[in-house]
Amino acid sequence: MEFTAQQIADFLNGTVAGDPTVRVSGFSKIEEGQPGTLTFLANPKYEHYIYNTRASIALVNDSFEPSQPVSVTMVKTPDAYSALARLLSLYEQSKPVKSGIDATAFVSPTATIGEGCYIGAFAYIGDNASIGDGAHIYPFVYIGDNVQTGKNSIIYPHVTIYERCVVGACCIIHAGAVIGADGFGFAPQNGEYKKIAQIGNVVLEDNVEIGANTTIDRAVMGSTLIKRGVKLDNLIQIAHNVEVGEHTVMAAQTGIAGSTKVGAGCMFGGQVGLGGHISIGDGTQIGAQSGVISNTKAGSKIMGSPAIPVNKFMRSSVITPKLPDIWQTVNRLEKEIEELKKTVKQY
Amino acid sequence: MEFTAQQIADFLNGTVAGDPTVRVSGFSKIEEGQPGTLTFLANPKYEHYIYNTRASIALVNDSFEPSQPVSVTMVKTPDAYSALARLLSLYEQSKPVKSGIDATAFVSPTATIGEGCYIGAFAYIGDNASIGDGAHIYPFVYIGDNVQTGKNSIIYPHVTIYERCVVGACCIIHAGAVIGADGFGFAPQNGEYKKIAQIGNVVLEDNVEIGANTTIDRAVMGSTLIKRGVKLDNLIQIAHNVEVGEHTVMAAQTGIAGSTKVGAGCMFGGQVGLGGHISIGDGTQIGAQSGVISNTKAGSKIMGSPAIPVNKFMRSSVITPKLPDIWQTVNRLEKEIEELKKTVKQY
Amino acid sequence: MEFTAQQIADFLNGTVAGDPTVRVSGFSKIEEGQPGTLTFLANPKYEHYIYNTRASIALVNDSFEPSQPVSVTMVKTPDAYSALARLLSLYEQSKPVKSGIDATAFVSPTATIGEGCYIGAFAYIGDNASIGDGAHIYPFVYIGDNVQTGKNSIIYPHVTIYERCVVGACCIIHAGAVIGADGFGFAPQNGEYKKIAQIGNVVLEDNVEIGANTTIDRAVMGSTLIKRGVKLDNLIQIAHNVEVGEHTVMAAQTGIAGSTKVGAGCMFGGQVGLGGHISIGDGTQIGAQSGVISNTKAGSKIMGSPAIPVNKFMRSSVITPKLPDIWQTVNRLEKEIEELKKTVKQY
Repeated sequence: MEFTAQQIADFLNGTVAGDPTVRVSGFSKIEEGQPGTLTFLANPKYEHYIYNTRASIALVNDSFEPSQPVSVTMVKTPDAYSALARLLSLYEQSKPVKSGIDATAFVSPTATIGEGCYIGAFAYIGDNASIGDGAHIYPFVYIGDNVQTGKNSIIYPHVTIYERCVVGACCIIHAGAVIGADGFGFAPQNGEYKKIAQIGNVVLEDNVEIGANTTIDRAVMGSTLIKRGVKLDNLIQIAHNVEVGEHTVMAAQTGIAGSTKVGAGCMFGGQVGLGGHISIGDGTQIGAQSGVISNTKAGSKIMGSPAIPVNKFMRSSVITPKLPDIWQTVNRLEKEIEELKKTVKQY
Repeated sequence: MEFTAQQIADFLNGTVAGDPTVRVSGFSKIEEGQPGTLTFLANPKYEHYIYNTRASIALVNDSFEPSQPVSVTMVKTPDAYSALARLLSLYEQSKPVKSGIDATAFVSPTATIGEGCYIGAFAYIGDNASIGDGAHIYPFVYIGDNVQTGKNSIIYPHVTIYERCVVGACCIIHAGAVIGADGFGFAPQNGEYKKIAQIGNVVLEDNVEIGANTTIDRAVMGSTLIKRGVKLDNLIQIAHNVEVGEHTVMAAQTGIAGSTKVGAGCMFGGQVGLGGHISIGDGTQIGAQSGVISNTKAGSKIMGSPAIPVNKFMRSSVITPKLPDIWQTVNRLEKEIEELKKTVKQY
Repeated sequence: MEFTAQQIADFLNGTVAGDPTVRVSGFSKIEEGQPGTLTFLANPKYEHYIYNTRASIALVNDSFEPSQPVSVTMVKTPDAYSALARLLSLYEQSKPVKSGIDATAFVSPTATIGEGCYIGAFAYIGDNASIGDGAHIYPFVYIGDNVQTGKNSIIYPHVTIYERCVVGACCIIHAGAVIGADGFGFAPQNGEYKKIAQIGNVVLEDNVEIGANTTIDRAVMGSTLIKRGVKLDNLIQIAHNVEVGEHTVMAAQTGIAGSTKVGAGCMFGGQVGLGGHISIGDGTQIGAQSGVISNTKAGSKIMGSPAIPVNKFMRSSVITPKLPDIWQTVNRLEKEIEELKKTVKQY
């Protein structure tokens, strides 16, 4: 499929600066722009690329004022990045859609499959499981007994959903994620550990996206709860009985210990660790690699391990490499003061 | 199934305070207690909930003395938490048990399957593999050639066990775990890396539990060894030729580099990293996110990266945010001393 | 198979010191040496083991001069470690090789399978996928539509390769790795997050090895690129649009945020985190658990979070535990100087 600059501008309610008849059939990054593709400029840091890009069309912000001549045709919209997102989404939706239940899939006779579902080869749907309308269940997905999934959810290959867990509507679960494995609960007993049965489940509300190989453990009792709109990146660990508030996002490799409650609208960098049984206020922002062991108030911005306010962390980080100098100076000053005290005493 | 408070007290050798005829059919957390459920109070921090819980029965310690009237019926035992564990376990055991070899499973003609096993749909059992009596092998489990698993082990979906690895009796391996992938061994050669064949295996002894998506690499020669009773949480990395001592527990996302030996009865927090070729003494406790690069003595309690004794770490952590102040003060003192020296010299 | 010391020396172009007729049929570590096995001594730290090892043959460096009598027969070569690697590789190659397409595999009628491939039970090969000659595709591998894999690549069980990704020749992808899941891209919109379609792919060039459960996300546009000879350990996260240069190696649990470019010949320790949109110079060495948030020059050696030159990090780390002392001393000195100033003023 090809589109002209004018067609794209019309779709986006934007305007064309340049040749409205130029055509594109794909996308490229601005630094790698190829003829016949559309690129975009949202971050001013990359502005210099637009003066030499070989792409045919560039999405730019209305506010963009070139400081040099540009040869690429520009499509101007109020927000180039979200305009791009709309185009990418359109492109994605043009892909052929899979449907039907593959003959090799294992579907329990007591399971319920909604209308318009795709159940891929070798997928496994357990007893009394219920798959919502329009779901995409890829090959090798394991849906345990009594699992429920909502409408239009997409579950990629090799996802495991243990028995009795619940997945909302319009969720996306990437390959290899494990939903509902046993929480890590053991009672010490005579120098050994006795397993505590984990009889709860995991509930993902609507519009949740779970990254590849992320693990979310079932509750010991009740539910580990991931609320509406939460986005979790890859290789994240969510322990038993954790709750994550609406529209919170976490970058990859973050880990949250048991029973911690995370508020709504939080943003965590990568490789963050949260202790157990704490409460993270709404809108908390936590820098990458931080370790958090106590409650945070709503709107906190923290970093470090243990985490402190981010501005304090930044200022301390600058000083840390000077520690050997500080140590040396303090030792020297100590001696100098001793000398001074002696000298002064003599008077 | 429903039970009365009296029946539960009898099972636990406990006593009833309240209505012995009240009935429950499930469990709930004390802060979310629902009528018809049993809850528990073990941590004094949660005591205030017991005065308002809507649960019908609460397990409490014999030593618990309410400071206000309680309406919930209490079942008293010496240790409410372990009593709860017994009840949860009973509940878990009442679930229907799967058995038999699914018609879609791939079982090599040279494999040996013990009595009373469950081999789920699409499971794969390789040549000369041996599956112990009573094992539960879930769908999509890959058991490589010449693998041996002990009696009554449970292997959840999408677990991969590479050839020649050994799993003991009563082990539990959660979904997506990978046992026996090649160790990360390469020899530099003319600016490239040449793979060193990893011809060893992994041995899990009895009563080991491995978390979801955890990876344990095969030894270059000999065995990577996880000893009896070890419990590993999710997303842990164990490199080649590591040994983990009996009844050691590690929280999620911990990583251990090659050839390191971890003693018995250790406890590691989450996201801990251990360097290679070191030795961790029995009973060592390592705080979350620590980095350990040298040997530890038995009974050490360490934290930080690089790790130091935990009390030292705690005290230093408090001072770290003051570093900018310290820096400023030291610079000021330096100048003041210079001034003083000049002044004193004048006399 | 058994070999004599003389046969081994001939194969390695080495020399025998001891009994050239002694036979071995396997390998062992020097500290666990068993009769009938071959061991090696490369690291001088382990020298003391050679005087007592029960192994029958020990590979040693030409330069090795025993300080005590040795009873084990030695085979001397210029580099014992690479000689060992050659023997291990020979041993590995003697294993039976799987071949053929299993009857239970799902192969799309539009897919192309090269000559001499092994396609295991329950493997899934999507539409228009192309599998290079001599590939080993293990059970439960998911090869998405339009994926291409090069010659002689080995893809272990439960690997997921999303549509349109490209795998070079002679690659090894370990169990559970996920290649091409969506990058973590969302645009904030009225307090929620709107998914940005990720329409790019992942390209692995030749001779790349990917560890178990490692995840490499597809680009938003263009390709996430892992260049020739790169070796990634287990549980690593590579975000969308990252590029990793030739022959770079990364230890387990490292994470790299979006659009970062890593140079050639770099070495990263375990649990390293790299921020997004930065550039890491060729040959950069990054210590375990470091956090890197800005560009590095070629040949940098850095450590810490945030990372600083490794020698600075080491020196600062020694001082960190002294922070409480420093704090106390500085406070004391401050008072003493006040006293001195008063005293001096009196004169």
